[in-house]
Amino acid sequence: MNVLDLQQKLSLFDAKWTPKIIGALNGQEVKLAKLEGEFVWHSHADEDELFLVLEGELILRFRDREETLGVGQMLIVPRGVEHQPYAPKGASVLLFEPASTAHTGEVVDARTVTDPEWI
Amino acid sequence: MNVLDLQQKLSLFDAKWTPKIIGALNGQEVKLAKLEGEFVWHSHADEDELFLVLEGELILRFRDREETLGVGQMLIVPRGVEHQPYAPKGASVLLFEPASTAHTGEVVDARTVTDPEWI
Repeated sequence: MNVLDLQQKLSLFDAKWTPKIIGALNGQEVKLAKLEGEFVWHSHADEDELFLVLEGELILRFRDREETLGVGQMLIVPRGVEHQPYAPKGASVLLFEPASTAHTGEVVDARTVTDPEWI
Repeated sequence: MNVLDLQQKLSLFDAKWTPKIIGALNGQEVKLAKLEGEFVWHSHADEDELFLVLEGELILRFRDREETLGVGQMLIVPRGVEHQPYAPKGASVLLFEPASTAHTGEVVDARTVTDPEWI
């Protein structure tokens, strides 16, 4: 039950597309991730996923449109909805999602992290 | 599946100790609340509760100590742990908790909101 400082936690890593866990509650996890460039298209069959932008700008592409999120903006991607995170100039995000959520969803990619690290 | 801007959402209300729902996912809710002064001591038997400070400063008092959170800092209060939020100069917070969570926990207070509004 400690105070977690988001900027301090972000300073602990620089790897892109490698979510780090900073908290757990009610079967959910709070993660931080740094993003740059395009990620894989994927969906999560059973998990809704929240993105909150802390630094930079994140484009969430969907099959029929895209949304751009700046600092202090969030979007919840419902389960089953295909999405592609894209951060042309880089972004840092906070994620809320069930502890079971794989960040590449059903897709296995070279960047898939199967066992995210706690920081 | 819309972009939610936290500052814009905060501009929609001014009532203190009256959480507003801005999103739901995986049986959890994301709420915003404005706090000023002392709240009631309470606990949640079955729910862990996350506080993330967006504006101002929040003191979370526990029976044996207290923690002070500034902007960009968060703390997860585990289920069953008595706490008293205290914001002497005011604070705006984001809460992440199960949809079932009553903000005054087991306690019914004049300020208890039983059916939080969506904004």
